Amino acid sequence: METKSILIENGTLITPKDESIKTAKNMSVLIENDKITEISNKISKSCVDKVICGKGKIIMPSIVNTHTHVSMSLFRGLADDLELNSWLSEYIWPMESKLDREIVYHGAMLSNIEMIRSGTTTFNDMYFLMEDVGNAAIDSGIRGCLSHGMIDFGDYDKRKNEIKSALKLLKYCKGKNRLKGFLGPHSPITASEELLLQSRKMANKYGVGLHVHVSETKKEVDDILDAKNMRPFQYLDDIGFLSEDVVAAHCVWLSDKEIDIIKAHDVKVSYNPSSNMKLSSGIAPIHELLAKKVSVSLGTDGSASNNNLDMFEEIKIGSLLQKVHVSNPMALSAEESFKLITINGAKALGLNDEIGSIEIGKKADIILFDTLSPNLTPNTNSLISHLIYSGNGSNVDTTICNGKILMENKQLKVLNEKDIIEKANNVNQKLKK
Amino acid sequence: METKSILIENGTLITPKDESIKTAKNMSVLIENDKITEISNKISKSCVDKVICGKGKIIMPSIVNTHTHVSMSLFRGLADDLELNSWLSEYIWPMESKLDREIVYHGAMLSNIEMIRSGTTTFNDMYFLMEDVGNAAIDSGIRGCLSHGMIDFGDYDKRKNEIKSALKLLKYCKGKNRLKGFLGPHSPITASEELLLQSRKMANKYGVGLHVHVSETKKEVDDILDAKNMRPFQYLDDIGFLSEDVVAAHCVWLSDKEIDIIKAHDVKVSYNPSSNMKLSSGIAPIHELLAKKVSVSLGTDGSASNNNLDMFEEIKIGSLLQKVHVSNPMALSAEESFKLITINGAKALGLNDEIGSIEIGKKADIILFDTLSPNLTPNTNSLISHLIYSGNGSNVDTTICNGKILMENKQLKVLNEKDIIEKANNVNQKLKK
Repeated sequence: METKSILIENGTLITPKDESIKTAKNMSVLIENDKITEISNKISKSCVDKVICGKGKIIMPSIVNTHTHVSMSLFRGLADDLELNSWLSEYIWPMESKLDREIVYHGAMLSNIEMIRSGTTTFNDMYFLMEDVGNAAIDSGIRGCLSHGMIDFGDYDKRKNEIKSALKLLKYCKGKNRLKGFLGPHSPITASEELLLQSRKMANKYGVGLHVHVSETKKEVDDILDAKNMRPFQYLDDIGFLSEDVVAAHCVWLSDKEIDIIKAHDVKVSYNPSSNMKLSSGIAPIHELLAKKVSVSLGTDGSASNNNLDMFEEIKIGSLLQKVHVSNPMALSAEESFKLITINGAKALGLNDEIGSIEIGKKADIILFDTLSPNLTPNTNSLISHLIYSGNGSNVDTTICNGKILMENKQLKVLNEKDIIEKANNVNQKLKK
Repeated sequence: METKSILIENGTLITPKDESIKTAKNMSVLIENDKITEISNKISKSCVDKVICGKGKIIMPSIVNTHTHVSMSLFRGLADDLELNSWLSEYIWPMESKLDREIVYHGAMLSNIEMIRSGTTTFNDMYFLMEDVGNAAIDSGIRGCLSHGMIDFGDYDKRKNEIKSALKLLKYCKGKNRLKGFLGPHSPITASEELLLQSRKMANKYGVGLHVHVSETKKEVDDILDAKNMRPFQYLDDIGFLSEDVVAAHCVWLSDKEIDIIKAHDVKVSYNPSSNMKLSSGIAPIHELLAKKVSVSLGTDGSASNNNLDMFEEIKIGSLLQKVHVSNPMALSAEESFKLITINGAKALGLNDEIGSIEIGKKADIILFDTLSPNLTPNTNSLISHLIYSGNGSNVDTTICNGKILMENKQLKVLNEKDIIEKANNVNQKLKK
């Protein structure tokens, strides 16, 4: 196959590098096929298939969203201003019982255009009928880490079926470019000890990661305390579930001892501030986790509890929330925040050798951020501050994943937006019947 | 003068009406000159100068931002991750000492394009060299309530000068369409009792409102407690400063007694969540204020502490923050939030007979919000939820102020964006020298 090459010329490169953030002006990046092959302030234009002008643009790694339920985009604006338990049992679960493959696919496609538009090209998703989420990711050109959400409530038959679906999904993902299978025991409340243990065994056997909700609400912690006489992370530690391959979403209610447990096992924490605020679940101790050098990334959760997938909005909210929560304006700084949405996300998903920073040899997952917008002016002040505190997804100009241009000058190149929005509206009618 | 007319056809009207929110599909709005003259599901197209298709659009009142320092847009990204006192004394004040009329004008123009783009057409501003902020508002076609920020720290000569500048500004505003003069004693800490009292007298004499920062930080409350043996609002009540014409920004640290004082005088509270979070000032008790029927509106504060002027982002953050703060997901609901950014803003500025809702006889301050965007899909779910929790300023499609189209299909019609951004970057260089 002939080499396809893209040259991004003369932009301001901002990328995580060796635990800090590197910023360099007038930089060019060469992409050949799916990889970054050269980064320099002078790359020859000849023999390049496509040149993108980076003037007035930030060149940065695409964003990694480490906790999503992308098909839930169809539930956006359907059940707001409710607390988690009634939100789930009275609205979300009854709706979810009506889901079918077509609905899940079109919900995922809707989320995929939102993500591409706002610069996210890798997401970590847990839901049902996940092969259709995978098909949507394949059709959209983005990367998906996929787990079937396993819920057994202690029931043997349910557990058997859930494990079957999970293994089927791993098989489906195997060998597929841009897809990675995960195992998703839903939470230590909804998944029994048996299911958690079997998940751990399967993760070891198949060499895949685990995606789980932990300590989202105080009620969940109290329930586990009642049942196990231990807090959730103590319980998960006690049964041998924890390891560096675990992505734990939410982590709102943590004791100091649990933070030590998380650190000891190098568990990856996915911070989901908007969802935790909107459902009034609480505020995760991210400042404390980072102080103890825990690996923290960021996730939007589903659009039913956020209500969008804009990771730039999410990180601003997440950073501001930490500052006011610990009464320290230095908490979750712009630089630290930048790492959460890029390299830390990649680390959480075991993809940091491939994505999360702009380096030679890594996959070309790159976005351009337009600095010639009023909210990014003056352009001589801190651009990292602009990205985190002032910008949002609508400032993303160009999105590249795996060396393929998915959006250029804010125009989608692979997907038909109008068609996807129409289909989403149509399947939503079906869902509401 | 010939009548100029604009017909907005077949949109979904969402507007505050009689203490609630009215939503009506397939509605048309007729604008003649600066006013709304007809609202109906069928308005004849003949003899109309301009027709705007409202299909797939929300027709709603333009946004009112009740606390800004628009010229501070030039300080965006210059001093982040700092607490209020060192942020002010080490960064902002030294920079402000270098301000001149040109810088203030171009800083304001930069904010004005940000506001027009994100649907805000009325702002309440306190700063220096305010006539240039006024000139920028005139040139931009938006509404400004302007106050010269008076700081005397008890010094007689300073006070005399500040009052002179404030009166000069009132004179400048007089008779100017779309401008309204306010008096701006900066805060009960930076303005002496004499200055506060003289401000109250002048407000009564000239029939203008008062714009003041109150209880932004705990330190401010402690300092006033030390000096006056009273909390800030008790002190302001005690000296006779408070009345329904006072717009009090921040109001973070309030006792129950102070909430009662605020209610008793019908003081208008401007909630500034992002700034209060970013500087870790604290969380304003908005849920409690609303429960006591206090009139609360929303402000972004300046771009140095936010770092943008997007009121849709601001209201999402503000609503989510209240929910998590009081552990109640029903706090500051989408409907209540919608009022904060529209009619309550108008009330705060004494403009509710003219703007803040879409009604016959009111000024035509109207925006169209594009619902054919992925983050506003599905369009059959709650559109108010979409506006507050999922949308942001980039979804605003068309902005009209005083019957004049300032933006249409996301293209600015009056201002030259490229030129304004370039000028802002240039004066920023001057400021940094």
